[in-house]
Amino acid sequence: MKPIRSFASDNNAGVHPEVLEALAAANTGHTVGYGDDLYTERARAKFREHFGDVEVFFVFNGTAANVLSLQSLTRSFQAVLCAEASHIYTDECGAPEKFTGCKLIPIEAPDGKLTVDTVAHHYHGIGDQHHVQPRIISITQATEMGTVYKPDEVRALAEFAHTYNLLLHVYGKELSKDFLYWRKQGMQLASKMRFISVQLETILSDDLWLRSAQHANKMARLLEEEVRRIPQAKIVYTVEGNGVFVQLPKIAIPKIQERYFFYVWSEEENVVRWMCSFDTTEEDIRQFAAFVRDSLKG
Amino acid sequence: MKPIRSFASDNNAGVHPEVLEALAAANTGHTVGYGDDLYTERARAKFREHFGDVEVFFVFNGTAANVLSLQSLTRSFQAVLCAEASHIYTDECGAPEKFTGCKLIPIEAPDGKLTVDTVAHHYHGIGDQHHVQPRIISITQATEMGTVYKPDEVRALAEFAHTYNLLLHVYGKELSKDFLYWRKQGMQLASKMRFISVQLETILSDDLWLRSAQHANKMARLLEEEVRRIPQAKIVYTVEGNGVFVQLPKIAIPKIQERYFFYVWSEEENVVRWMCSFDTTEEDIRQFAAFVRDSLKG
Amino acid sequence: MKPIRSFASDNNAGVHPEVLEALAAANTGHTVGYGDDLYTERARAKFREHFGDVEVFFVFNGTAANVLSLQSLTRSFQAVLCAEASHIYTDECGAPEKFTGCKLIPIEAPDGKLTVDTVAHHYHGIGDQHHVQPRIISITQATEMGTVYKPDEVRALAEFAHTYNLLLHVYGKELSKDFLYWRKQGMQLASKMRFISVQLETILSDDLWLRSAQHANKMARLLEEEVRRIPQAKIVYTVEGNGVFVQLPKIAIPKIQERYFFYVWSEEENVVRWMCSFDTTEEDIRQFAAFVRDSLKG
Amino acid sequence: MKPIRSFASDNNAGVHPEVLEALAAANTGHTVGYGDDLYTERARAKFREHFGDVEVFFVFNGTAANVLSLQSLTRSFQAVLCAEASHIYTDECGAPEKFTGCKLIPIEAPDGKLTVDTVAHHYHGIGDQHHVQPRIISITQATEMGTVYKPDEVRALAEFAHTYNLLLHVYGKELSKDFLYWRKQGMQLASKMRFISVQLETILSDDLWLRSAQHANKMARLLEEEVRRIPQAKIVYTVEGNGVFVQLPKIAIPKIQERYFFYVWSEEENVVRWMCSFDTTEEDIRQFAAFVRDSLKG
Repeated sequence: MKPIRSFASDNNAGVHPEVLEALAAANTGHTVGYGDDLYTERARAKFREHFGDVEVFFVFNGTAANVLSLQSLTRSFQAVLCAEASHIYTDECGAPEKFTGCKLIPIEAPDGKLTVDTVAHHYHGIGDQHHVQPRIISITQATEMGTVYKPDEVRALAEFAHTYNLLLHVYGKELSKDFLYWRKQGMQLASKMRFISVQLETILSDDLWLRSAQHANKMARLLEEEVRRIPQAKIVYTVEGNGVFVQLPKIAIPKIQERYFFYVWSEEENVVRWMCSFDTTEEDIRQFAAFVRDSLKG
Repeated sequence: MKPIRSFASDNNAGVHPEVLEALAAANTGHTVGYGDDLYTERARAKFREHFGDVEVFFVFNGTAANVLSLQSLTRSFQAVLCAEASHIYTDECGAPEKFTGCKLIPIEAPDGKLTVDTVAHHYHGIGDQHHVQPRIISITQATEMGTVYKPDEVRALAEFAHTYNLLLHVYGKELSKDFLYWRKQGMQLASKMRFISVQLETILSDDLWLRSAQHANKMARLLEEEVRRIPQAKIVYTVEGNGVFVQLPKIAIPKIQERYFFYVWSEEENVVRWMCSFDTTEEDIRQFAAFVRDSLKG
Repeated sequence: MKPIRSFASDNNAGVHPEVLEALAAANTGHTVGYGDDLYTERARAKFREHFGDVEVFFVFNGTAANVLSLQSLTRSFQAVLCAEASHIYTDECGAPEKFTGCKLIPIEAPDGKLTVDTVAHHYHGIGDQHHVQPRIISITQATEMGTVYKPDEVRALAEFAHTYNLLLHVYGKELSKDFLYWRKQGMQLASKMRFISVQLETILSDDLWLRSAQHANKMARLLEEEVRRIPQAKIVYTVEGNGVFVQLPKIAIPKIQERYFFYVWSEEENVVRWMCSFDTTEEDIRQFAAFVRDSLKG
Repeated sequence: MKPIRSFASDNNAGVHPEVLEALAAANTGHTVGYGDDLYTERARAKFREHFGDVEVFFVFNGTAANVLSLQSLTRSFQAVLCAEASHIYTDECGAPEKFTGCKLIPIEAPDGKLTVDTVAHHYHGIGDQHHVQPRIISITQATEMGTVYKPDEVRALAEFAHTYNLLLHVYGKELSKDFLYWRKQGMQLASKMRFISVQLETILSDDLWLRSAQHANKMARLLEEEVRRIPQAKIVYTVEGNGVFVQLPKIAIPKIQERYFFYVWSEEENVVRWMCSFDTTEEDIRQFAAFVRDSLKG
């Protein structure tokens, strides 16, 4: 029998029960659309509690948060420097190029992280009209490999950026100037906005975001421990978030997938990706690890 | 005291309770993301029940449904013929131009409806490289004025379109070729798709869409009757959907708006727009009409 | 026998002989490409003689001069206000929309000229995220109807623009910031630039531009005089440049076109457009007027 | 004293004298604009003599020929596979991305040439909505390194392309469907077209193109011979066209550049690029080689 919870991606998990309750609670009477409502105002206030005096615009997904940010910060003759495995480079069906008109310049980053050295190597052609002009350094926290930039690593990139009149874009964060229009034109303005707002308000309240993330990360570390006890399995990236990347004997992978749905990260190197989410339980981990161990026995 | 329900727009209403129940019911266990799940398959099947053998792609809003359809059907040197009051021409912050690169050609349409005559008047410059080449006739059903195209009016436009190698685009309907990529690149692919799918499945089941629409339209006709009894108020467009457009003495409008939120449709002609929704009650109509009558007394 | 010179358009004329001489004179030895050469520097200096301290970028045609200027001045959620008969609205195959992503808002202008009143009528929706945001007022001097803005008409539009944070774009003029990249990306950078530069240098030297324009305008006034002597012909726009717009009996038009190539401006109103150029002679005018007179005799 | 002719680029050379004569000869009387003239028809006929039954559209430069071809062949969710040193990837200021909206995927190609193996390695993600969909393989003949694809190498790429429903784009060649509009919208339509047409007609007549190219290539081989006699200089790519790439002692490069203008191809590896053109003479080569030899003596 298939287990209720997989290790494929946290987007396979459902909605946190507290979020669902908030949706139901918001469903009373009429409320003005497009974000001029009290629910949205409360959600914005929550963001300011956490991030200081920021402007906040809700969009439908991470693709849009990133692409519209890049669009609002660039002109089409400029370029975005990013890791070659970054989501904006590989997994958005070309949306960044389509929206911005810019070239995205892929930078080698074996552990998913850009460094000042690798960025500097691609910073050239400045003032040459034949070349695109670098404008953005885009990083993702945590990276696609589950690794995490340390504060001083981010600071070094920010310093490099500011020295050379570049902007440092952190996946999901955005500038506010004219963003109102970028969002609408980018087809990301919800009419019944309150139902988006209450979700974010709930997530930012009572540390729900923190509790959920800490739990998922803790489960990932537990999974890492279990995996380390399995001789044929090898952890390939440092576990710093909610993902565990494991190299396995090729033959075992489909056997495990018969019961558990997850993605192969590298076909060539037999690396798989296992993700934990807010609802992963210790019991899920134990059962999964046991099944992996059995599958490796041959 | 403000009433619970306004007449501003059906997007001010909440979610139908049956839809909210469906959301809660879908929130169990893990499900694969991006639409390869059973919930989405069931919702697609519902569409095929209603529309025959169609491909279905869920997006986040009407802006996206229209813009991505137009984008998948056009090249940037082509043009879209549409009513000058149409939503795609006036209310999308330029998203159609941005996405398609095409010119939108506005056609005068006092009652919101295009005709073969007015379209034919703008069909010219064919084969002339200096001119954009008409490709799409885009209509909205019901129109922004609450009027409705009769079947033979749609048929006449379709025949004109096909005679001249144009496509007839009906607001919200789409072609499927490559739409998978247009949606993703258009930033409209939901990862937790099931929560979109179950809403559409519910709306298309047990005639919920029909019951809701018939109720809103019936309430609009009731409101129309009430308004016709008020001598100073004049219905300006035929009431064929869920909207009632009324010309009022200028001075009365802000007085009514003190209690009821709604939009002024034409500042110059003192026309207001009142919309009914699935949750509007007969009692709401009576109270509103009484308040309007009182406000007009001076 | 067909005459050597037509009245269709000044683009039917050849190159001024002085320009051709300059091309031949520039064809000696090797010169660095893309504009870093002495010929180009001299042409730029000529522009500064005439226009003061300006940056100058040569492109291949008027379409590019206008479209790249608009592109460098706008973001895609903004709008360009222009006359409905303006070249950028009707005759560029949608290039302005394609390059800028912006909506072009057509303004009625029977004589080709925008006024503060007609522009103000289309200046609305400011700050409303659903609407495109007006950013540019674009005018053409002389207009497509051969009329000319007076200095105080331009000044009034400029004042309106600056009051409302708009920019006034005069057909063919451009801002320099980053234009280097817009030009290259817009596919308008010539490698053997000297051959463009010497043409412009020559045109701006020894009043060649002024002599040529004055001559063409003088010929147009002579043509106007001749036409006014023909009872069945009616001048429809004030002749202020090098074009004469004439309403004729419908039947006569094809008869005249048998010998002279020119365009019908309005099929519905039987208006034709006759253009003079730097090489039109008085003799050309006399012969043409005589032929028109004969053709009208029946 | 600086020599009259450099080895920097053939775009530093002037216009062939026969082309200049053709320009002067075309400058008589009035001719209809935008390409509907006899000069253009004759130039098109010349292309059909050489290439068979093809449609021909003249544009202003190579950037436009390539970018508009790619634009007419792609939709924005597709991708273009090209060599990482290819002009479209590195030297067009992002024009391909801006016009097409597509991602360009750079492929390693040390000698400038794509192979079936390297292309196949980047052909993946087919049918996956998150990934751009490969559509074009773009090659340049001769490559940026002066190497040349052999007929069977082109054939192998074409066969791969057609097997996988891709198109093989050869730098500068184009499809004709709707190209009329792409050109105009791409700001590449010349009004006084005859002056472009006669240049191309002349180049394609009496083997002027062949004589010019053969001469430039012959001079490159002569230069290669001379360079091979200089012990400190090393030819780095096979000389198959009109360019010679030479590795030199770092210190000698600026000394040679004092007298001769040319580009350093690789700062890191001290490789310079020397190009020959239709007007390079044997004498130019001997003098240049002698100067290089002297500069290397220390």
